[in-house]
Amino acid sequence: MPILKTIKSRRSIREFKDKPVEQSKIIKILEAGRWAPSGLNNQPWKFVVVRDKEVRSKLAECTESDDVVLGAPVNIAVFLDKGREYNRIKDIQAIGACIQNMLLEVHDLKLGACWLGEILNQRTKVEKLLGVSKKLELMAVIAVGYPKAKKRRGSRRSLRSQIIKNYSIKN
Amino acid sequence: MPILKTIKSRRSIREFKDKPVEQSKIIKILEAGRWAPSGLNNQPWKFVVVRDKEVRSKLAECTESDDVVLGAPVNIAVFLDKGREYNRIKDIQAIGACIQNMLLEVHDLKLGACWLGEILNQRTKVEKLLGVSKKLELMAVIAVGYPKAKKRRGSRRSLRSQIIKNYSIKN
Repeated sequence: MPILKTIKSRRSIREFKDKPVEQSKIIKILEAGRWAPSGLNNQPWKFVVVRDKEVRSKLAECTESDDVVLGAPVNIAVFLDKGREYNRIKDIQAIGACIQNMLLEVHDLKLGACWLGEILNQRTKVEKLLGVSKKLELMAVIAVGYPKAKKRRGSRRSLRSQIIKNYSIKN
Repeated sequence: MPILKTIKSRRSIREFKDKPVEQSKIIKILEAGRWAPSGLNNQPWKFVVVRDKEVRSKLAECTESDDVVLGAPVNIAVFLDKGREYNRIKDIQAIGACIQNMLLEVHDLKLGACWLGEILNQRTKVEKLLGVSKKLELMAVIAVGYPKAKKRRGSRRSLRSQIIKNYSIKN
């Protein structure tokens, strides 16, 4: 499948089958993430893979998307390692690139995922729950599993509205 | 090609052939970018496509990577539209996801690109040069063209060093 088709057909998945995700697939998803580019190749990401139901239940208490966290057999918490930080804007962009790689790999594996951001409102609670170092700042949780829900149509504003100037066409 | 292979074989390209990039390919690259996910689907990105040599020369003066900007027939400036901002961290992550989509599409099209970040040091100069609205904040410049240089090996730290906990394996 050309990559543009993979990119355009990916959707957020919020409902999952009651079926575990193979460890080999989790590894592939993390592999995709860690091969993202980053400024000075500083690779500022760290991952916590949560499959344990008890831990997931506590994680679910930290977000309004509790059904997604509980319903997904795997939750990958993504952290910014401030011990590796060199420029906050570029490091956060790198985290975004890393997450997008994971989402694309998820889709390619015929799994589904939901990128959870609202959970950042309770990030210190999550950091404590997962017992991570004080240098790590929660950036997102990715809920992963076999998709149950039918795919919805995606929508984006027109490309025309997003290109503000094009110096190839004199303006 | 499986997406993981595309992800892992992508490299930063800093030297380009003296060959223009087809407009249809530029559109595909921007399409890939605009189909990135974003918080509340707010799509906080805006693009300026620079092909004009005179503008590129002035852009090159804003960065130490002047040879890359001048050598690449196309430079795509990526902006955060603060008029659409809802959460700065998540919006910057979305910009990172958008850029990564573009880099993957570039690679899939057998083009090469370099993600320039150091140019942010002179972002107000770039914003003035390109004459963008005060609501737009420069996030990166992507230099794009047909690759000249041979591919270098990429390197990443081990996955083991990046997974800090794995609750599927009791610890």
